Amino acid sequence: MLKLKRIAIDTYGENVAFLARNCIIYRPEEYQAFKKIEVVYQGNILLASLLIVDDENIVGANELGLSEQAFARIGLSENDPVSIAPAEPPRSLDHLRKKIHGHTLDAPQIEEIISDIASHRYSEMEIAAFLVSSAGFMTTTEMLALTRAMAKVGNQLTWPAPIMVDKHCIGGIPGNRTSMIVVPILAAHGLPIAKTSSRAITSPAGTADTMEVLARVDLSMHEMQKVVNDCGGCLVWGGHVNLSPADDILISVERPLSIDTREQMVASIMSKKMSAGSTHLLIDIPIGPTAKVRGHGDAMRLRKLFEYVGREIGLHVEVIQTEGIQPIGRGIGPVLEARDVMAVLSGNHDAPADLREKSLQLAGALLEADPALEGGSGYARARHLLESGEALAAMNRIIDAQGRQTEAFCSGKLTDDVLAPKTGTITAIDCFRISRMARLAGAPMDKGAGIDLFKKVGDVVEIGEPLYRIHACFQSDFKFTKAFADEATGYQIGNNL
Amino acid sequence: MLKLKRIAIDTYGENVAFLARNCIIYRPEEYQAFKKIEVVYQGNILLASLLIVDDENIVGANELGLSEQAFARIGLSENDPVSIAPAEPPRSLDHLRKKIHGHTLDAPQIEEIISDIASHRYSEMEIAAFLVSSAGFMTTTEMLALTRAMAKVGNQLTWPAPIMVDKHCIGGIPGNRTSMIVVPILAAHGLPIAKTSSRAITSPAGTADTMEVLARVDLSMHEMQKVVNDCGGCLVWGGHVNLSPADDILISVERPLSIDTREQMVASIMSKKMSAGSTHLLIDIPIGPTAKVRGHGDAMRLRKLFEYVGREIGLHVEVIQTEGIQPIGRGIGPVLEARDVMAVLSGNHDAPADLREKSLQLAGALLEADPALEGGSGYARARHLLESGEALAAMNRIIDAQGRQTEAFCSGKLTDDVLAPKTGTITAIDCFRISRMARLAGAPMDKGAGIDLFKKVGDVVEIGEPLYRIHACFQSDFKFTKAFADEATGYQIGNNL
Repeated sequence: MLKLKRIAIDTYGENVAFLARNCIIYRPEEYQAFKKIEVVYQGNILLASLLIVDDENIVGANELGLSEQAFARIGLSENDPVSIAPAEPPRSLDHLRKKIHGHTLDAPQIEEIISDIASHRYSEMEIAAFLVSSAGFMTTTEMLALTRAMAKVGNQLTWPAPIMVDKHCIGGIPGNRTSMIVVPILAAHGLPIAKTSSRAITSPAGTADTMEVLARVDLSMHEMQKVVNDCGGCLVWGGHVNLSPADDILISVERPLSIDTREQMVASIMSKKMSAGSTHLLIDIPIGPTAKVRGHGDAMRLRKLFEYVGREIGLHVEVIQTEGIQPIGRGIGPVLEARDVMAVLSGNHDAPADLREKSLQLAGALLEADPALEGGSGYARARHLLESGEALAAMNRIIDAQGRQTEAFCSGKLTDDVLAPKTGTITAIDCFRISRMARLAGAPMDKGAGIDLFKKVGDVVEIGEPLYRIHACFQSDFKFTKAFADEATGYQIGNNL
Repeated sequence: MLKLKRIAIDTYGENVAFLARNCIIYRPEEYQAFKKIEVVYQGNILLASLLIVDDENIVGANELGLSEQAFARIGLSENDPVSIAPAEPPRSLDHLRKKIHGHTLDAPQIEEIISDIASHRYSEMEIAAFLVSSAGFMTTTEMLALTRAMAKVGNQLTWPAPIMVDKHCIGGIPGNRTSMIVVPILAAHGLPIAKTSSRAITSPAGTADTMEVLARVDLSMHEMQKVVNDCGGCLVWGGHVNLSPADDILISVERPLSIDTREQMVASIMSKKMSAGSTHLLIDIPIGPTAKVRGHGDAMRLRKLFEYVGREIGLHVEVIQTEGIQPIGRGIGPVLEARDVMAVLSGNHDAPADLREKSLQLAGALLEADPALEGGSGYARARHLLESGEALAAMNRIIDAQGRQTEAFCSGKLTDDVLAPKTGTITAIDCFRISRMARLAGAPMDKGAGIDLFKKVGDVVEIGEPLYRIHACFQSDFKFTKAFADEATGYQIGNNL
């Protein structure tokens, strides 16, 4: 038996094992041909990739090293005895090969693949192969099976309330933090909403990143359930709730490959909502030239897929198309966005009107799910809850229940105003470029970094008037971002109307 | 600037960089989002994946670690100054995404992708995405462009002789070491053949592994050219000659995924032959129930693809179909196969007749490329060169020119005879199972490990008579192999005819 050793290397999601080339028990080269090995301990098995080490300070000849995450997963102590064996490739790879060669898979085959992915039995290249072959061709029946399979491997939430509303935005619009306004409105009304959100992967902020400016978001499933039962709503990070662990793994490969097919998007979203125990779901599809969905035809096809899966899994789905031609609100980046959200909830005079209006529309549509409410009165009810301060009070209850943030984040101290290069009317703002700029400035890692927009589409500007302000926390980021804005502001300015 | 440090971890083909989480110059988390970073040194750039380290004994706060291969590639000394930058994703990923979504690519797009792959700019998952999307659909025009693109990034060999013959076997048949007999026959005749071969990846031996029992095979391009110019032929490993570096990378992902499409196979083989400067190529397609190609229809489609690419790139291609229903020769594994080869070349009475006959057929077909030879006399000429000992002499010249092996390998000392479970006539031998068994026994890593067949299809056996002998060098391998043979011998025995 080898002695277990923790190797303080962060290998992200992947389990990595380290074996000395001069190992006294195994011949590492024999295992090199296998992409994965089984680490056997106390009758259990952990799958890991193998790296061979030529430095006994890292791994000794009688040791097996495990990367930080793998060591945490195996739950043993250093020097505990473990053995290794070559890992048999997962049997579902046969199905994957069929898919690669153009076959259609049935539900049990998809379930096997997803179960193996959730158990970390697939390498990144195998996951890529699954995603790409599915992107090439996927039937709606396969999409439904994928949704169910992904929900099945996740935690399943149950709720005492008969109606659990939920919302999801297809994304791609910076500053679009409507959830943080919709959730307190619904909670104030008494229609429970257990909102899980993602952290940013390629964007400058996810709802979880922005909510974290105000409260703790990394709640466990049980903590989250308590908050929802106590306050009627929550705004937590989905990562600890584990509603769709297979999807989390798929996304980690989808993103770098920029594979973004409708079918995978629908299965990803619907599997999480299915696990979350939602009964009524509102999907927001922003449409715009630099948004994820660029036209109404695309949006309609997507809507039909959501409706189909919703019907099959017994989840009431409503899809609305919204304008996605520019960022929503003014701030882009966690602190700046949280400021906008609290301004709307507090009824501040200078709160961004577009963020307020869109949130009211979404909340109004969701409120219609309440049988006690007269049809068509959702919007007015939402506005009442916002204007009366009841939504703000609900938000404060949620913040306290999740754990109010003790750190006082403020916007990045390194600032630079980007000026209008000409006089005219703003005709377009490139969402993609503004997002990229906010990321360069340090968002979401630096909560205070980002972009604060002074002008929106339709506004008239004079030459030299500030369009937006860059906020950064570090000099190098600040420099990069200024240089990026110098290349192109991301604004189109037309002649005065 | 960071100080360079060699981290003695073997990460195979992949460049891996290690940065301390408490790095004093960069914030590692910022780079974590990027799948690759650029290591900048003396005006050059090395692309690498990044892992974050929490142990200053591995990487200090002012150091950048590089895995063994990356350190060797960068060619600097420890403590040399380097900096890092986030790597821009390769621009050809746009083409890849088009391919994923079903577009057909043109030659310049394929060339960009292959050039980026050859420069290690693609991650394994991106390579998998390229392979899988190509496996789903690839036009013959794309296949031709892929062939040319792969040849272009490799070394290009040129030869003084007007005719350079070459051969390639589609593979999958254990023991099929005809190249080691064909090359000396052609060399003896004076028709030059610069044969590069692969090492085994999933099989128990590649021609390079078997040749290595007799001679050095890891020759550089220039060494190889000298051997061919001096001896009229060579039998070297393709790995150092770098004829198709992109293909070597593609194969490293194809194999674990078992993607094996016709188009990729043709592009892979033809790109190497194009770079090798061959003028006449003989392709051997063995057909059998457990071979790679299972029927004549498949073989014909494959032949047409080879002929199409051959015509377009100006390489004369002849395709022959051979019987692939059982292993060729008796030994499976480097030492046992080398023994068979030398027995044929030496004209030993007990040399395997099937290996001899097939080699003569292939050599005969290739000899027909010689304008000086009367049409149809190739086979007779080949037999003459073999029987006269001229081929053996040529083989010895090649062995000496490449560097005669100084280590005397012998067959594995742990042996076990697998016995016929019944009396009857052998009707089939499962090539796949016999290959797997020889690998379990330790081949190709243990040169002497493998399987020695005593009986072939058509032979009559008595119950209890040995079918084959397992040779292993290590007890654990020996045990596994015996257990595997106990499950099923791989032989089918019918009633006596």
